Amino acid sequence: MSEAAIGFAKANGGRFVEELKALLRIPSVSTAPEHVEDVRKAAEFVADGLRAAGLENVSLIETTTVHRKGHPLVYGDWLHKAGKPTVLLYGHYDVQPAEPLEEWKSPPFEPTERDGNIYARGAVDDKGQMWMHVKALESLMKSDGGLPVNVRVIVEGEEEVGGEGIAAFVREHGDQLKADAALVSDTEMFAPELPTLCVGLRGMIYTELEVKGAATDLHSGMYGGAAPNPFVALAQIIAKLKDEDGHVSIPGFYDGIEAPTAEELAAWKTLPFDEEQYRRHEVGSTELTGEPQYSVLERTWSRPTMDVHGMPGGFIGAGAKTVIPAKAVAKISFRLVPGMKPEATFAKYKVFVESIVPRGTQVSVRMIHSGEPIVVSTDNEYIRAAKAAMAEVFGKETVFVRGGGSIPIVGDFVRELGIPTVMMGFGLPDDNLHAPNEKFHLANFHRGIESIVRFLDGVGAP
Amino acid sequence: MSEAAIGFAKANGGRFVEELKALLRIPSVSTAPEHVEDVRKAAEFVADGLRAAGLENVSLIETTTVHRKGHPLVYGDWLHKAGKPTVLLYGHYDVQPAEPLEEWKSPPFEPTERDGNIYARGAVDDKGQMWMHVKALESLMKSDGGLPVNVRVIVEGEEEVGGEGIAAFVREHGDQLKADAALVSDTEMFAPELPTLCVGLRGMIYTELEVKGAATDLHSGMYGGAAPNPFVALAQIIAKLKDEDGHVSIPGFYDGIEAPTAEELAAWKTLPFDEEQYRRHEVGSTELTGEPQYSVLERTWSRPTMDVHGMPGGFIGAGAKTVIPAKAVAKISFRLVPGMKPEATFAKYKVFVESIVPRGTQVSVRMIHSGEPIVVSTDNEYIRAAKAAMAEVFGKETVFVRGGGSIPIVGDFVRELGIPTVMMGFGLPDDNLHAPNEKFHLANFHRGIESIVRFLDGVGAP
Repeated sequence: MSEAAIGFAKANGGRFVEELKALLRIPSVSTAPEHVEDVRKAAEFVADGLRAAGLENVSLIETTTVHRKGHPLVYGDWLHKAGKPTVLLYGHYDVQPAEPLEEWKSPPFEPTERDGNIYARGAVDDKGQMWMHVKALESLMKSDGGLPVNVRVIVEGEEEVGGEGIAAFVREHGDQLKADAALVSDTEMFAPELPTLCVGLRGMIYTELEVKGAATDLHSGMYGGAAPNPFVALAQIIAKLKDEDGHVSIPGFYDGIEAPTAEELAAWKTLPFDEEQYRRHEVGSTELTGEPQYSVLERTWSRPTMDVHGMPGGFIGAGAKTVIPAKAVAKISFRLVPGMKPEATFAKYKVFVESIVPRGTQVSVRMIHSGEPIVVSTDNEYIRAAKAAMAEVFGKETVFVRGGGSIPIVGDFVRELGIPTVMMGFGLPDDNLHAPNEKFHLANFHRGIESIVRFLDGVGAP
Repeated sequence: MSEAAIGFAKANGGRFVEELKALLRIPSVSTAPEHVEDVRKAAEFVADGLRAAGLENVSLIETTTVHRKGHPLVYGDWLHKAGKPTVLLYGHYDVQPAEPLEEWKSPPFEPTERDGNIYARGAVDDKGQMWMHVKALESLMKSDGGLPVNVRVIVEGEEEVGGEGIAAFVREHGDQLKADAALVSDTEMFAPELPTLCVGLRGMIYTELEVKGAATDLHSGMYGGAAPNPFVALAQIIAKLKDEDGHVSIPGFYDGIEAPTAEELAAWKTLPFDEEQYRRHEVGSTELTGEPQYSVLERTWSRPTMDVHGMPGGFIGAGAKTVIPAKAVAKISFRLVPGMKPEATFAKYKVFVESIVPRGTQVSVRMIHSGEPIVVSTDNEYIRAAKAAMAEVFGKETVFVRGGGSIPIVGDFVRELGIPTVMMGFGLPDDNLHAPNEKFHLANFHRGIESIVRFLDGVGAP
C-alpha cells in the first residue's frame, strides 16, 4: 500500500512544493491584529487542501477566548476503517512575526528556493510540515482510494500566540477529536540525515513585567538623581531573577522537578553533538551560557530557564532623547520542565518580584500565555511505528530526543484526550525558526511525506 | 527708555503670541531625519523675525559636523552703540521628539491655549523663550529706534541633539560672536512668581551600550538555557552601574568633583522647596530615589547620576514572540557636575563596562553626545543687572539656583569666548519639558519680554 502512495508523492512532488509556496505567501501572523484576514485566508487554504485530499466533514471551527475572538481551527476526517486505530493529525497554519525585516535575504512572504531549501516565514514552522500531512493523506487516498487507518485532522491558527482556542476546544469538545494517538510534525531532527522522534518538551510561561515610576515622562537633566527610572528598576529585578551562572533565583523555582532517567541521560551522551560546533555554527556567540554543571542538551531540554525577549517603553528611535520614562516593560518568559506547573511557577515568580520592588516604583506582572511541560513514554505501538517508518525512509536508526520549546497542544492531548503524541519532525537545527531567513530543506519535505505515509501504513498493519 | 518699549510689548502682546503659535506649528525635531526640512523652515521663520525686529546682517549659517550636515544657525546683530557693552543673545529653534503622541491632550504641533498656558512641543523649550528675545529687541527698536546696548543674536537648531554645529562655530569663528556677556533663556523659575537666575548646570554624556550575543535571533525554546541573552546581560551591567541607593559604581566616577560652597548650600535650604509636594506633584512616584545622604536639590543640581532612556532591540510589539535577540541596546546617560570632564567620565565608564562583560556576550559603548558642567560667578555686572530686572518685573527678590540639565553652549561661551552667561529663564517646574503636554505660561512669556527689555536697558545704563 505504501509503495503506490509513495510513487504518487514522488510523481507529484513538484506540485506539492508549488502549493506550499502559495500557502507561504499568505502572511498569517497570528499575533498581529492587522493580519487577521490573512490568518483566515490561510485557514481556507488548508481547508481546500483537505477537501482536495479527499477528507470529509472539512470545516472551519470558530474559536473565542476570554481575551478576543480567535483564529479558526480547520477540521477534516476520514473514518471508514472500522477496527483500525484512529490517528489525530495536528499542525498549525499561523506563523511568527517576520521582524526584523531588514535581516531577510529574500522577503519573508515571497518563498524563494536557494540551495535545496525553501526560504519563507513559516517554511518549517509549521506550514511546510503541516502540508506534509495533507500531502501524505492525499497520496494515500489518490493511490489507494482510502487510508490504512481512521484519521482526524485538526489544524490551528494560534499556536504562536498560545493556542488558547484549540485548548478550549479540546477541553470542551474532546469527543469530536476522539483518537488513539496524535501525530505532530512541529519539531526537528537532531542532525541532518538523522531520523529523530521527540519524546519530551519544555513548558513555558510568557509574561510581561511592568514597572511604573514617575506619573509622566520626565527630563533626565532636571529630575535625574531623584526620580525613579523604570529601566534601571527592571535591570535590578532581572539581574535578581537569574544569576550569572544561569541559575534562576526565584525561591522554590526548582522544587519538584523530575530529572531525566539515567538511561535517557546515557542515550543523550551518544548523540552526535559537538558543543564547539553548536556554539560556533548554531548560536554564534563567543561562549555558551547557562548552568555549568549541566550539559548543553540538559540545559536546553531538561532544565528550566528564563529569557527576556524585549523591553518596550522609553525612547528607542535614532539619536538621543533625555527622558526618564514613566514606565517600562520587560517581556520575560520561563521554560518549564516536567514536575513544574505553569500557574505555580507564575505565582512564585510574582511573589518574588513583589518582594524586590525597587524604591519608588510600582510593579505589575501579567501572564500572557503558558504551556505545560510533557514527556511521552517510548513504550507504545505508535512510537514504535514511527521509529520504524523514519528508519526505513532515512536508512538509519531513529533516535529519541527532547525539545526545548513548547507545543502546548501535546499536553492537552495527554490531559484531555488521554492519548500519546508522536512528535515526528523534519526541521533541521539551522532552519532559523522564529528568526529571519527561516527555511525548510526540500528533501526533508519529501521524506516527511514518505515517512508519514509509512507511519500510517504501519499503524494500520494487521 | 524701558517704559516705551514695555508699552509697545504690552500693546502688541496678542500678535507676539500668534507669531509664536506659527513657529510652534513647525515640527522642527532636530533628531529626526524626516524633519530636516521642517527644521530649516523654523530657521527661516526666526531669521524673518529678526529682520522684522530691525536686526542687521541677518543670515543662516550652515553647519557641518563629522557626523552629518547640520541644521543652520541663525545670526543677526545691531552694533551701533559704541562704548556700550555687547550682549550675545542665544536660543534654539529645534525641539525634542513629541513621542509618545497618544499622551498629548492636544496635538504637539497644534499650539493650543488652555488655562493661561500655551501647549505645544517647544512651547517653553525653547521656541517660546527664544521668541521673547526677538520680541524684546523688536519692542526696543520700534519704540526707541535703536537698542540700549550692542547686540548679537545666535539661534541654533541642534540643541536637542548635542549642539555640535554651534560648538564648532564658536570654536572656529568666535570673533564673529565677540561680546561681553551672553543671555540665555532656556531655564526655569524655581517656583511660580519667584524670579530666578540659574548660575550652574550639570554636564552630560549620552551613550549607547550595545550587547551582542548569538549571531542571529534564536528561538528561546530551543536555545534558552545555553545561548546568551543580550537583555539579561544589559540588565546585569546596568544593575552594576548604579547601586540601589543611587550611587554610581564606576571606579573613580566621583573623583575630583567640586561640592557647592557652604554659602550656596545654605541659600538652597532657604528656597521654597517642599519635598513631599515635589514627590507628589512633579514626580508623582511612590517615593523619591537617589543618594539618601544628599537633599533632593543637591541630588539634581550638584550630584552626578545615571539614567536609562530606552532599550531598543528584541520584540516590543503587542503579544508574544519567543525570541532570544542577537543584540540589544541601552540608551544610557550620565549627568556630570563641576570637576568632571565628559571624555574622562566616558573613558572610566567604558573601562568599567568592559571589565564586567557577561559571559558569551560582546559589548560596545558609543558616545552619542556630551556637554560640560558649568558654574557662573554671581559677582559680575550682568548678573546684577539681570537680578534687578527680574526683581522689578516680578516685585520680588531674585534667587540663585542651579539646573540639573545641560546647556552645553554655556560652557562653550566660557571656554571659547571667555564671557559669562546670564541664564534668565521663565519656564515653570510643571512645564513638561521633553515630555507630553509641554506648555509655557503665557503671563511668563510677557513678563519675560519685559524682563529682557529691562535687563538690556540696565546693562546699557551709564
